[in-house]
Amino acid sequence: MTTARQIVLASRPSGSPTSKNFRLEDRELPEVQEGEVALRVLYLSLDPYMRGRMSDAKSYAAPVAIDGVMEGETVCEVTRSRHQDFKPGEIVRARTGWCTDAVLNGESIQHVDTHGAPVTTAIGVLGMPGFTAYSGMKVIGQPKKGETVVVAAASGPVGSLVGQIAKLAGARAVGIAGGQEKCAYVRNELGFDAVVDHRSKGFASDLANACPDGIDVYFENVGGPVWDAVLPLMNLYGRVPVCGLIANYNGASSSDHDKLPATMSAVLRRSLLMRGFINTEFVKEHYTAFRQEIGPLVASGKIKYREDIVDGLENAPDAFIGMLSGKNFGKLLVRVSSGSR
Amino acid sequence: MTTARQIVLASRPSGSPTSKNFRLEDRELPEVQEGEVALRVLYLSLDPYMRGRMSDAKSYAAPVAIDGVMEGETVCEVTRSRHQDFKPGEIVRARTGWCTDAVLNGESIQHVDTHGAPVTTAIGVLGMPGFTAYSGMKVIGQPKKGETVVVAAASGPVGSLVGQIAKLAGARAVGIAGGQEKCAYVRNELGFDAVVDHRSKGFASDLANACPDGIDVYFENVGGPVWDAVLPLMNLYGRVPVCGLIANYNGASSSDHDKLPATMSAVLRRSLLMRGFINTEFVKEHYTAFRQEIGPLVASGKIKYREDIVDGLENAPDAFIGMLSGKNFGKLLVRVSSGSR
Repeated sequence: MTTARQIVLASRPSGSPTSKNFRLEDRELPEVQEGEVALRVLYLSLDPYMRGRMSDAKSYAAPVAIDGVMEGETVCEVTRSRHQDFKPGEIVRARTGWCTDAVLNGESIQHVDTHGAPVTTAIGVLGMPGFTAYSGMKVIGQPKKGETVVVAAASGPVGSLVGQIAKLAGARAVGIAGGQEKCAYVRNELGFDAVVDHRSKGFASDLANACPDGIDVYFENVGGPVWDAVLPLMNLYGRVPVCGLIANYNGASSSDHDKLPATMSAVLRRSLLMRGFINTEFVKEHYTAFRQEIGPLVASGKIKYREDIVDGLENAPDAFIGMLSGKNFGKLLVRVSSGSR
Repeated sequence: MTTARQIVLASRPSGSPTSKNFRLEDRELPEVQEGEVALRVLYLSLDPYMRGRMSDAKSYAAPVAIDGVMEGETVCEVTRSRHQDFKPGEIVRARTGWCTDAVLNGESIQHVDTHGAPVTTAIGVLGMPGFTAYSGMKVIGQPKKGETVVVAAASGPVGSLVGQIAKLAGARAVGIAGGQEKCAYVRNELGFDAVVDHRSKGFASDLANACPDGIDVYFENVGGPVWDAVLPLMNLYGRVPVCGLIANYNGASSSDHDKLPATMSAVLRRSLLMRGFINTEFVKEHYTAFRQEIGPLVASGKIKYREDIVDGLENAPDAFIGMLSGKNFGKLLVRVSSGSR
């Protein structure tokens, strides 16, 4: 029998999550049945969408149950297999949740192929976050040559790829990030055309100055005050893929006036498109093209990415809480185990 | 020389327009030059979009200038022609604005073909309002069999056709209208599946009861409290064509809390599509099909419409002001002149 450590949802947060909303516990894993595999988790991906799963508001996905294991995608090593497609020692991508070990049906896991890039990219730039950027731009944003694309959290796993995809399409990429270090990375390493610090007092006018021709595509992953600054700059026929609203996740707006009429008025007067999406909607039609287009560019170093790796499953809650206020710098991962190799 | 009467924008309204924002005046028309036609206006169409042209906020169209003639579409009789395509006595559609007579370039006007329906339909159900309903549903709403389509101002020129197009697509049509008389018309004459009175105290729960399977398409032409009631009912992958926000036109929301986060959260969590549009965007690709599909259905009486006709150009301002608070019942038109026939 294998004992797994896991992190469960102890209670639903009101406002910002705290470490009290999580509980670390042990459990005995069941025997591996025919068709199943036993997995040792190497890396756990921490992502903003998990905040949504902690609440029981109506959503595209069911919430995590109280006392249920926190959901999440991982890179794992197969330790035992009773499924013909998998052998011990192989590296796979799985939705084990926040845990050290798991037994899953082999049909629910995938071999990792990162074109020679590190296996962590399978849950980062070549995984769900990367595909979120790719599919949101491909299907909704549709940047054209000479247009201006703006994205916030530009040093993060989604934002960094949004900007680089904009550049590949011949558009101008303007990033928004928090603090000098992240801004320098976005401008100098990722090669965005301009970057604006959302912590600056003059943020709204800085953004306007960085977008002299207005904004054609705003990839929305933060909400809050960034949207307030973006809205007046949106051009006729602008597109807004909405994949996240991290600034709104922890509770109501602090505004004492209603900002909805201004947004609806801009949608009407400037014929804007807003479309919420979850990457899974586009997997069937676009995932293969994503891997074929982006995989080699990541492996060759043409597309850049950055990872922020925290050690130990027990540190996942604090890392996750920090991410919601922008403390991570790059794709946030937890190194759960170093594997057998 | 012909003397025309015209209504100009005397001042920009703050909040609801009043009759003082308009001025009736006379002007001498110029001679008809080569390529031009002289027109006598028979009917003027009054539409909510005109409220937008009275303001100088950034928009898809330039505002009417102070002392400029109020914009608008009309059905006219040609009284003199120096353009080869037009002869005196012919009936045309033109953008003369709010006036009794005009001289225009022949290239800017069109012959009226209403498939045998009254000429007024050329600026109603078979004109801009009808094409707004048609193109918004065709391109953005895309109703499918068994889905639920909701539209407000359901007895009006856009809403009435939205619901009837939904029915043609096999969808369920739920209308929102103000008062018993309009509701009865929507249910009994237009054949909507259900109708809800927005003046009722229990409006939000009435709407929920009328939409037991949620809402797949909400055709937004009013904004305000109707949107608040619609939002919680929107289904996954719901579509919201935004063609008007009449409740918002006259000024800021009266809400003392910020409703934007709730809307953005629904867009994200339910993968909603919102798209502002002006019918002119779709003319090139869809206008011919609109005329071919809808024209015969109007002429044969299968598609129903209702007109609310006010006599005399001098009454246009009051009729327009009344329309903004829902006083009209059907497509609002001004009979400017009875023509020579």
